[in-house]
Order: sequence, then C-alpha cells, then structure tokens
Amino acid sequence: MLGKILEELRAASPLVHCITNYVTVNDCANILLAAGASPVMADDPDEVEEITAISSALVINIGTLNRSTIPSMLLSGKEANDLSKPVLLDPVGAGASTLRTETAKRLIRDVRFTAIRGNISEIKALAIGAGTTRGVDADDADAVTSATLDSVVAFAKSLSKETGAVIAITGKTDIVADASSAYLIHNGHPMMARITGSGCMLSALTGAYLAAHPERPLDAVAASLCAMGLCGEIAYKRLEATGGGNATYRTALIDAVYGLTGAMLDAGARYDVR
Amino acid sequence: MLGKILEELRAASPLVHCITNYVTVNDCANILLAAGASPVMADDPDEVEEITAISSALVINIGTLNRSTIPSMLLSGKEANDLSKPVLLDPVGAGASTLRTETAKRLIRDVRFTAIRGNISEIKALAIGAGTTRGVDADDADAVTSATLDSVVAFAKSLSKETGAVIAITGKTDIVADASSAYLIHNGHPMMARITGSGCMLSALTGAYLAAHPERPLDAVAASLCAMGLCGEIAYKRLEATGGGNATYRTALIDAVYGLTGAMLDAGARYDVR
Amino acid sequence: MLGKILEELRAASPLVHCITNYVTVNDCANILLAAGASPVMADDPDEVEEITAISSALVINIGTLNRSTIPSMLLSGKEANDLSKPVLLDPVGAGASTLRTETAKRLIRDVRFTAIRGNISEIKALAIGAGTTRGVDADDADAVTSATLDSVVAFAKSLSKETGAVIAITGKTDIVADASSAYLIHNGHPMMARITGSGCMLSALTGAYLAAHPERPLDAVAASLCAMGLCGEIAYKRLEATGGGNATYRTALIDAVYGLTGAMLDAGARYDVR
Repeated sequence: MLGKILEELRAASPLVHCITNYVTVNDCANILLAAGASPVMADDPDEVEEITAISSALVINIGTLNRSTIPSMLLSGKEANDLSKPVLLDPVGAGASTLRTETAKRLIRDVRFTAIRGNISEIKALAIGAGTTRGVDADDADAVTSATLDSVVAFAKSLSKETGAVIAITGKTDIVADASSAYLIHNGHPMMARITGSGCMLSALTGAYLAAHPERPLDAVAASLCAMGLCGEIAYKRLEATGGGNATYRTALIDAVYGLTGAMLDAGARYDVR
Repeated sequence: MLGKILEELRAASPLVHCITNYVTVNDCANILLAAGASPVMADDPDEVEEITAISSALVINIGTLNRSTIPSMLLSGKEANDLSKPVLLDPVGAGASTLRTETAKRLIRDVRFTAIRGNISEIKALAIGAGTTRGVDADDADAVTSATLDSVVAFAKSLSKETGAVIAITGKTDIVADASSAYLIHNGHPMMARITGSGCMLSALTGAYLAAHPERPLDAVAASLCAMGLCGEIAYKRLEATGGGNATYRTALIDAVYGLTGAMLDAGARYDVR
Repeated sequence: MLGKILEELRAASPLVHCITNYVTVNDCANILLAAGASPVMADDPDEVEEITAISSALVINIGTLNRSTIPSMLLSGKEANDLSKPVLLDPVGAGASTLRTETAKRLIRDVRFTAIRGNISEIKALAIGAGTTRGVDADDADAVTSATLDSVVAFAKSLSKETGAVIAITGKTDIVADASSAYLIHNGHPMMARITGSGCMLSALTGAYLAAHPERPLDAVAASLCAMGLCGEIAYKRLEATGGGNATYRTALIDAVYGLTGAMLDAGARYDVR
C-alpha cells in the first residue's frame, strides 16, 4: 500500500515550497529531486505567499531561524491553509532556545499543520515546554524505550488530537500518529545520525508525500518515513560494499531515494499499526 | 576554438564574485574551483562594491532573493559597470513571483549585463512578463521545440539587441545569441535536471569564462555552455559505469569540469551557428 | 600525544556552536559529525547566547558576513567568555574588504579568543592591516617561504602574546603558536585548495578539538591541524585510487576525518616544535 503512494509521488512530480535552514537546504532540494518532486526555496516575506500558491505543499523548517524569515513562515503557512494545501512543520531545535520553542508554538497556534515531524525532545518541547533538546539532537533523557513506548504513542495521539496534525516522532522506532491510530516504524540505520540533514531531508520528502497523497496524511507520512528509513538501510549496505565514511553515506542515502521503487518500499517497509 | 577559451580560463584563474542563493552556493564555489577559477561569495551592501572591485567578474543570481541582498546586487552591478568588468544575471524563478520578475527587470534597467542566462520561461518573463515559470523550472508550455526554434532564436537576438547582453537560453537545445548571431548548442543530458544547481553552477562557470575572455562574450558564453553540457554527458557515462543516483551524478558533474581540457572541449562540443 | 586528544574528542562528543557562512556550512556540520562532535548552527541575535550556553565551544567564521550576524558574533563571543568556553575566530577574507577587516578587529577587541585561524594574508590583515588578501585566498606576495619562516613564527608568537589566542596560520607549512612556543606542521596536500571550505571545515573541527581539550589549547589546535592535513593526504590517496576530481576529493576528505583514529594520527602527524 505504501509503495502505491511513492508511485503517486513520482507520477505527480509535485512542486514543494520549503522555507528551511541554510545548513541542509541543498540536501533537501536534492532529495526532493531524487524522489521525483521539484523543490522551490523562497523565504522573503515579499514573495512567499505567491510561491506557496503555485506549490503543492509547504515545508517549514526552523533550523536556522531568523527574524526576517519568521514572518515569512506565518504568511506562507496561512496561505497554505487558505488554499487547503498540505503544510508540514519541522521544529528543529525546539527546546534548545526560547526563540525556537516560542516560534514553533506560535506557528502551531496560527497555522493548521497537516503534519509535525521532529525528534522526541523537540516534540516534547512543543507540547509541554519540557524538552531537554541537546542542540538539534534528541537528549538521551528523552529516549523512547520499550518501557516508554506505550506512553509516547499515547502522547503522540493526544497531541495529534489537540493540533489536528499527524505527529511524527523519529528515532530508533518512529511513531506516526493521528488522533486514533499510530504506525510504529522500524526502518532506519544509526548511521543516519552521523550526517547532517537526515531529519531536514525527511521533512522535505514528507512534504512531497503529503502533496501526492493529501487525502490520507497519516499514510502519506508513514510511507515517507518507511521510505527514508529503508533508504538509510540501503545506503548503509552500499557503504559497507564501497568503504568510506559519513560523506559517502550522504551521497548513498540520496541515491537510494532516487532508486527506490514502490515495489521495493512495499517489500522493505517494516511497521506495525496500533 | 572554444577549447582555447577554456585554457585561457585555467591560465588566468580569475576571481569571480557571486551574489547568489544559499541553496546551491557550495556547488557554485566548487565548480568554479573545478574550472580553475576562484570563488568569492559576498552579499552585504557594506562590502559588495569592494569585493567586485578586486574580482574579474560578477555573477548575480536571484535564486533566494531577499530584501537585504537586492541593494547589494544593484551596488555591485553598477560597480562592475564602472570598472568595465563582465557581469552576468541569472534570473532564477523570474515569472514565478512578482518580486523575482520585478527585481530582475529592475536589475536589467539599472545594470548593463554582459550576459543573461536562464531557462525559456525565465527569459520570457524578463522580456514580456509572460512566462509561466513553474517554481524554478521551465514550464512545459514554454518548451523550445523544432517548430518554435526559429522564433526563439529571433527572440533571443532581439532581446540581446535591446539589452546589450548576450542571451543564453538553456534547455534541450541551448541558444546563445547576441544581436547578430546565435549558437545552437546540442550538448547536455536530461539527468542534469535531476540535481539542484545545474543552472546556478552553469551561471557561475559562465562568469569565469567571461572573465577569461571578455573581448568576445558570445564565444565565452558558448564555450561555457558547451563545456557544462559536455560535462553533463561525461558525468552520465560515469554514473552508468558506477551505478548510483542523482547525488553521485552531482559529484561526477563537478569532477568532469575539473578534468575537462581544451582538447576535450573542442572534440566534444556540438553546436551550429546561425 | 596528539592522538590522545582525538580520542578525547570522540569520547566527549562535544556540541559545537558555529556562526558561520552559508557557503560551506553543510561541510562544517558534516566534518564535525565525522569527528564525533555535534554541530549546532544558530546566528540570530535572539538566540545565540542561549545556544552558546548549551555548547562546549563556539566557532565564529566571517565568510559571508552580514549586518544582522555581526551583533550575534559579539553577543555569543562574550557569552562564551563569561562561561569560560573556548571560542575560535576564522577571519575569512580579512584584508579583502573594509567590513571584514574592521569586523575581525572589533571581534578581537571585544572577545577573548582561544584561537584564531586563517591564512597568512588574513592574519596579517588582522595584525597590521597590511594583508593583500585575494578574495578568500592568501595572496602570493604573502606566501610563507623558508626564507620568511622564522619571521612568521616570531610574528605568530608576538600576535599570540598580544591577543592571548593561539594563532594558527595555515598554508604549505602550518604554524601554530602561543606566546612561547610554536608547532610547524607539515601535513596537508595542495588538492585541499581545490575545494571550497577546507579552511572553514578546519576551523569548525578545531573548535571541537578545543572543546575536548580546553586546558592545553596549543596542543588541541596542533592536533586538529595535523588531523586535517593528514586527512587531506589520505583523501588524495583515495582520489588517486578511484579517479575523479575535486568533488570526489571533498567526499574523501570528510570520510577520512570519519575514519581517523588516534593511532593513525600519532603515526601520520609530521611536525616540529620551536
């Protein structure tokens, strides 16, 4: 089933508007192209609404937040809402600074997000202001373990009910929840944490999946996370074959997204639904 | 003949000032280094004129236009004009937002460009405000076909006459025109559209070619486009040999520019002149 | 001895706050991850102090200086001083524009740097306002030769005495000096100058070494420079084996940092101390 969503994405080739950070923006653009989508990056308040209007989805990433792009995020988020286009929030580093936490909260107040994707520390910071985000990485104290999994799933469903957004919490096990059900996704590889931009790329990619399959956002987000995790596994196999380090792995990861088919996704996705 | 211009570039190692977008800026710097030039990226109004003054060419790319860099583009463009240095405009996404279209037009009004390079939708947007740019990609409705080629060549010559700039319209067939003659360039590979920055890198590279061969800008631009297209072909052969996807292709493309010699360019360039 | 510092870095996995340019920021993040550190990039005045406060070192790079990040550099530099965290300055392009030279000088006046790393033209511009920086590259007229080496070492020691910072001047031979002693480092490869970001990546990496070994900054900086130079050599061997150009080399360089062990560093470091 998830493979079908990937094929829809390749067929639709949606234009995805990203307001994102300058650290990983090139990787975000290339992974969108790898998946068959088209990226457009624009963040000036004087043009963001027009760019959102011609796009099929909007991705807001607060990774290098600054004063001049915050108004752009609000403007384009509202435009996406007005035009009923999917809009995703990646609250990078929420919990690590007041500016990030407060901006993320304000965005959630003023924009109806289709999906919110972050690590557990970031999502907790959004929900309860109590994350202990370590820079842009999840803090060990927040790690999702088998002992805490049930309560994290309940938390994600509850946050989804509150915000109306599909909540995606990525980590060793990814949790994708709406108010009533949740995917637990077991794809992925620890090497993904050794490159910058794994999370940002995933958020951009998820924007494309939402654009291609807006009627069932829970499934679209789950397909995107399974695809990315599976590509992380494929890339690690290539790294083992060729040798190299994290820079080679980055190339292999984007290449894997380029080569992934619906059939491969259906065969390789590992998840259960609660 | 074009190969000689490439060799001049390697010998001169010109410093190229780029005011460019943050999506592909790293690729632009690396392709300039690959070609034997030196990049310098600077976009603050307080320093751009000084940086232009020590450089051999200026490249203005509006890919992530913002309020604070527009004045920088105007200042450094005028400085380049005052010092008779080549200056190139890449009107990324002109036609996709009013800000981009109007800024590109204002730049053309206030700065005498040596060359303007874009896809057909962007160039049409500059000329007649009628492009239907799809984000930063050419719209299918604007595609140059054998049926429309003659009229596009005439349009490019006419726009060159009007602006004084060599007009480079890139696509399946590239058109490089001044007021009286035009190159039709047949190099290139469709895979170039599957990475971000093909166009931006080409514009940066063309700035270096103009710096090395300012007395004949038409030939310099044609040499740059043939070189980039040929490298796109070489990179695709490497991709077929090694396997991989668009991330591998990006690496192979820059590598190909690094390895290209004048003799290879003369042997591989495919063009006719009208 | 230097290898031990590398192992300390891998064990500590320090968070390194970079206020850096948008050209090479992705490479800086990936090289920090390669070395076992964690990057956090943040440059808005509203959050930089908080981010510095949760980090173990701060790296300030003026490569694409702009009005809104200069206050951030001052704020976070002072915060790092107040919290006794190591702080490094990379005065990219000092000497190439008044804005860069004056900003670098102001930073040195207002912030106590643990280390300052640049090419000879940049460091001369800081010291005496007399560099002839060619964009962001050292000018040939400033090249350190065997004839001038003694005087450059004396200059570095004197500048260290004046500023309190370890002075690192990188080039064919790297010089790392405090007020009383100096390392002359012979690692490295000319190919490192054919990619963008060699210097920026080195500065980011050195921030991580300082975070891991703050009690002996001279040794920490020397270890970082030996490590980077050695990785430049390792990467060149891989390039010779696989073929390719500067883009392949960039990947190989970051990969080499990923794979470098303390034992490799001790075996490969080539330096003498004066």
